[in-house]
Amino acid sequence: MSTTPDLSALREALRLAHENVVRHGGGPFGAVVTRGGAVVAVGQNQVTRACDPTAHAEVVAIRAACAQLGTFDLSGCEIHSSCEPCPMCLSAIHWARLERLTFAGTRHDAAAAGFDDELLYRELALPPAARALPTVQALRGEAQAAFEAWRALPDKQAY
Amino acid sequence: MSTTPDLSALREALRLAHENVVRHGGGPFGAVVTRGGAVVAVGQNQVTRACDPTAHAEVVAIRAACAQLGTFDLSGCEIHSSCEPCPMCLSAIHWARLERLTFAGTRHDAAAAGFDDELLYRELALPPAARALPTVQALRGEAQAAFEAWRALPDKQAY
Repeated sequence: MSTTPDLSALREALRLAHENVVRHGGGPFGAVVTRGGAVVAVGQNQVTRACDPTAHAEVVAIRAACAQLGTFDLSGCEIHSSCEPCPMCLSAIHWARLERLTFAGTRHDAAAAGFDDELLYRELALPPAARALPTVQALRGEAQAAFEAWRALPDKQAY
Repeated sequence: MSTTPDLSALREALRLAHENVVRHGGGPFGAVVTRGGAVVAVGQNQVTRACDPTAHAEVVAIRAACAQLGTFDLSGCEIHSSCEPCPMCLSAIHWARLERLTFAGTRHDAAAAGFDDELLYRELALPPAARALPTVQALRGEAQAAFEAWRALPDKQAY
């Protein structure tokens, strides 16, 4: 992986973000996954047109890159996002094992356009019972069976 | 929405979690979305079998519920998860506007089975430049065009 950011991929993410607004009326966000300088997959925010609240640009690009490469592990790839990823997307980047993130707009730019992640950052920092989201924990004992089955599973594919 | 948790839906999430391990060799996680006490959609962790690192049980259930109801807004619905959701899933629950979360296993149970979210919680609490994930910010000025287009868009569908 190059030590300098790939500004052409970042500019493509910005182009996708702008196109998503003016062509599709979608959210102003785009993302590009690359490997060795080559584009693997791209994404645009599709929350409204796909009826999918998880279809942020980064998640769309990650899912497309995994489908393209036939793997759930994007080690060796990096992602370029038109804007600082929200906590969902940052977590998806983590689970996908992407090796670098380059972004253009900041969370403050996003907030100024009506996309404010601050409540979510605050929620994540709290223990479940203290969150604004009503949260109940129950049946912890019964929850162990699935974990025990996983521990006992031979030849399991860790992820 | 009932004031008491729906233990039958939570037990179904636990059954799905166990089934996912023993039948599919998948991760020990299941989730159920309900509305007014009726099941709308369910999910099992499909990271390995679907080659999708975002296919955690909660995300799968949310996407299925949205497809079922034809909306990106699950207001009026709640989610039952076999285990405390990871930050990606908790964020997805937030974006989907689910109104309550009930879970069984804790993040400590998950960690004991090899699924440790602690690094991710720490990452999310840090500013981007301080994270373990190499992160670069660039082209902030060029990033404004998409946001300006969004602000200027007439009749936009906010989400």
